[in-house]
Amino acid sequence: MSLRILGIDPGLRLTGFGVIEKTGEKLAYVASGTIKTTTGRGSEIEDLPTRLKVILDSLAEVIADYQPQQAAVEKVFVNVNPQSTLLLGQARGAAISALVLKNLPVSEYTALQVKQSVVGNGHAAKDQVQEMVKRLLNLPGLPRPDSADALACAICHAHGGQGLGKLATAGFRVRGGRLI
Amino acid sequence: MSLRILGIDPGLRLTGFGVIEKTGEKLAYVASGTIKTTTGRGSEIEDLPTRLKVILDSLAEVIADYQPQQAAVEKVFVNVNPQSTLLLGQARGAAISALVLKNLPVSEYTALQVKQSVVGNGHAAKDQVQEMVKRLLNLPGLPRPDSADALACAICHAHGGQGLGKLATAGFRVRGGRLI
Repeated sequence: MSLRILGIDPGLRLTGFGVIEKTGEKLAYVASGTIKTTTGRGSEIEDLPTRLKVILDSLAEVIADYQPQQAAVEKVFVNVNPQSTLLLGQARGAAISALVLKNLPVSEYTALQVKQSVVGNGHAAKDQVQEMVKRLLNLPGLPRPDSADALACAICHAHGGQGLGKLATAGFRVRGGRLI
Repeated sequence: MSLRILGIDPGLRLTGFGVIEKTGEKLAYVASGTIKTTTGRGSEIEDLPTRLKVILDSLAEVIADYQPQQAAVEKVFVNVNPQSTLLLGQARGAAISALVLKNLPVSEYTALQVKQSVVGNGHAAKDQVQEMVKRLLNLPGLPRPDSADALACAICHAHGGQGLGKLATAGFRVRGGRLI
């Protein structure tokens, strides 16, 4: 029996998503991508409701296409700029809305938990996360940073939100959060 | 021809809503209420996804029941506490999600715009807003504060987001934001 997990890295302009499948203790890549909520001509072009609708509609499509059974969303940092924090909160609220509308159980993980679970070091650098996601999911190349974070969040959930999963790291040796 | 407007005052624990009907230049009360996203035993009881689902489901019900054609959402203040700002942003994101999911055009107004439009004074006190909402909509009593703010937001939209609407205040004399 296998379990499909949708991981999400919500962001103000870019929301990363990644779908993985867990069969027994094996993890497999299903899909990943980035939802852009701006036209590229600046963040002021689209009004907030339109941007939230892009997130809702895009995630509804991802869920329809890949049929995940559970979802994991990265907890976001509060920004030094309160206005940015508010906007980020609204984007994250829309992302979680898309999930609960389809009755997906949603788990939340901090970046620390995700990095701890995937790299074995809560303070791992972005490229270490990309590298471990590539290895754990047997990808032919490095995933883009947004997708990598979303996939990492899904992997963290697959590991039970715990530290480094025991089988996921089979064959790899990790010391101080680095593969050796 | 009449237009039904749904006004929303999004909040962390309470989301106020109010529906009014504009026929020509006349405004009429349709419905109002408060969506509570906590059990009353403290805000930590329900997890965030569950709370957002309450907002989504409740607003979907309001929309189905009262069939508004347009929506107006109050812009929220950023809090001194960034974590509260983030939570508030997520609640507001869920509220706007509920609206755009039903393809309602969403307008946003600051508290200043709402008070200016309804009371004629951007810095009016809460009880002045309640009093003017009661008068403008011919209510038998004062609406509760959350409902009043949501109804006021809908009235602001009915006034075209402008200053004090010309007919809405017919029969009232206002000076310095106070009815005289």
